[in-house]
Amino acid sequence: MKITRSSTLVPFVLAAIFAFPALVRDAGAQAAPDFATLEATENAANAKAGPRTVPGRSIPVPNTVSPELQALIAAPYRVPNWNANPKSAAEWKELVNRLAAAAATAQKGVREKLGVTLESSTIGGVRVFILSPKEIPPANRNRLLVHVHGGGYVYGPGESGTGEATLMAAFGGFKVISIDYRMPPDHPYPAAMDDAMAVWKEAVKMHDPRNMAIFGTSTGGGMTLAMILRAKQEGLALPAAIAPGTPWSDLTETGDTYKTNEWVDNVLVSYNGVWRHAAELYANGHDLKDPQISPIYGDFTGFPPAILTSGTRDLFLSLTVLTHRKLRRAGVEADLQVFEGMAHAQYNFDPFLPEAKEVFTEIASFFDKHLGK
Amino acid sequence: MKITRSSTLVPFVLAAIFAFPALVRDAGAQAAPDFATLEATENAANAKAGPRTVPGRSIPVPNTVSPELQALIAAPYRVPNWNANPKSAAEWKELVNRLAAAAATAQKGVREKLGVTLESSTIGGVRVFILSPKEIPPANRNRLLVHVHGGGYVYGPGESGTGEATLMAAFGGFKVISIDYRMPPDHPYPAAMDDAMAVWKEAVKMHDPRNMAIFGTSTGGGMTLAMILRAKQEGLALPAAIAPGTPWSDLTETGDTYKTNEWVDNVLVSYNGVWRHAAELYANGHDLKDPQISPIYGDFTGFPPAILTSGTRDLFLSLTVLTHRKLRRAGVEADLQVFEGMAHAQYNFDPFLPEAKEVFTEIASFFDKHLGK
Repeated sequence: MKITRSSTLVPFVLAAIFAFPALVRDAGAQAAPDFATLEATENAANAKAGPRTVPGRSIPVPNTVSPELQALIAAPYRVPNWNANPKSAAEWKELVNRLAAAAATAQKGVREKLGVTLESSTIGGVRVFILSPKEIPPANRNRLLVHVHGGGYVYGPGESGTGEATLMAAFGGFKVISIDYRMPPDHPYPAAMDDAMAVWKEAVKMHDPRNMAIFGTSTGGGMTLAMILRAKQEGLALPAAIAPGTPWSDLTETGDTYKTNEWVDNVLVSYNGVWRHAAELYANGHDLKDPQISPIYGDFTGFPPAILTSGTRDLFLSLTVLTHRKLRRAGVEADLQVFEGMAHAQYNFDPFLPEAKEVFTEIASFFDKHLGK
Repeated sequence: MKITRSSTLVPFVLAAIFAFPALVRDAGAQAAPDFATLEATENAANAKAGPRTVPGRSIPVPNTVSPELQALIAAPYRVPNWNANPKSAAEWKELVNRLAAAAATAQKGVREKLGVTLESSTIGGVRVFILSPKEIPPANRNRLLVHVHGGGYVYGPGESGTGEATLMAAFGGFKVISIDYRMPPDHPYPAAMDDAMAVWKEAVKMHDPRNMAIFGTSTGGGMTLAMILRAKQEGLALPAAIAPGTPWSDLTETGDTYKTNEWVDNVLVSYNGVWRHAAELYANGHDLKDPQISPIYGDFTGFPPAILTSGTRDLFLSLTVLTHRKLRRAGVEADLQVFEGMAHAQYNFDPFLPEAKEVFTEIASFFDKHLGK
């Protein structure tokens, strides 16, 4: 309930405050005004050109997605993941390692259920994990994918960052190298990019880059784009395709859905949570608009074909569509898939989500179209 | 300001109500609580699985789009277009004709500026307009597009419905037939679809359907999809491609962005405005889930390649992505383009919008790929 309707409501409001303060504190979402009241209030508030005024609301779980995705959309905010604000390197490590330990345990169970195996290795001096499906279809025998995990440049060390690589191995039937790049607080920019490029440089010596693709979600999507920029700069071979999933292509607070989907996306919730702190921790004084940090500011000319994925509730929906448009304007073949009701990267959250299988099957089909054999 | 924070605010709230009632009525968007307060309130309100609770907010105009699109995004709600509730056939006609007269006058100026000519004609007994660009490029000389206008099955009669056809003629270099289909209150379902199909039947006698495409936005996007369903049913030739722009593919209130983008989209604003009334007026007692009325419930197998367009603030973003996914699941080649910050169909609102040119250039390029010459 907002004090925006009419002063005739004041007596009721007062009575309610004094009689049931706890109830009233909760009433923002529960006691929605009737439509005629909202219509009048919002028409008045939006009668002039300027920012858009929207009322506080309770937004139902959509019935237009699978029951599994409905459960993810209905889930509470992830506290402390979204809003942590560690004050020291030690606090960062404690948080990250605690979350990573739980995730790594969960990943093990997922791999077993999906028949994917993991082995540790080192490529170009960088720690990697190699994910292999139970069986690699003949068309993919000479193909190899490189995966860069997400997590805001702070989350996802070690095995905890391999979840998406497992799903791609399982649903796409590919062998995947997942890069366990170094991260802050000990290793800020450019350590992550240096590691990713060291792996790429070595990988293209062992495999034909025309049979390879790079993919990753969120921070991994941003790094995928930054890797292409850097490979172009350094004159390295490019992969035959890329799949930046809801890429963190701009580490500044730029993009309309940072606002329209704030509080709606139950994964990232708001830029002003941990993400702002993580961006600063990672950049470590470098300009956040450096294209190696925010690749949206780079030149996408000559990029390989790309398939991008997001959801209608994703805080990074704008970053995804801005990246898509910029690729198209640069003449790059670029496909976009946006999933109903999905918040940030939820296709990586439940291996038995029908929409997850759909996401990775589409990406695999896109790779199949563009990769040599 | 919401009464959701703490009862310690009560004295201030009371004082403000009594001292400045008008100011307080406006305060929902203006006096935003600080982030720490919002964080605590929203974490508490979203701590359990269920609907999402979001605070009332002021959403700035994004700086990530052209100045022309910024002006459209900043524009006030369109009253009475979005929230009219005519009580009789006479009231509907008065509203529709008044808006149409203004729009038709504007269209004339746009055609002159873009060098597009309009002639009236009749095809299959149905009134149409033929839009021709100043020059048709050689590749498009044997191509012909069919356009179905938008407007919730109530708005856009006569020349007022030809704006999108003008843009496609100008930016794509195509000859376009725009169908002036009959509408309620005098002619509810299935008159509009009967007219559209009468034109299509006749058009494929005059032109090779392999050189033809059908396109339209909103209601016109829904009708484009319904036309393919009906052409399949009746064993008629299909066009080589379609471009349903932010299609009203479901006339029931189904789709997550009907809620997440409610009050955010300054064009449609809310399903509970005129659109609910228009849906009922058009269906005239027929089941709203009849695939001829809500084509999302139809079988998309065998559809021609499709390119869909929407925006991140579009109330119909869900309908667009649900339609896109359903097409892909049916094995149809389907491209999706989503524009940053754009509300419903704003690419049709300003012929000098850079994003409008981009939308129609992408559609033209998609048609060029799929249409014979």
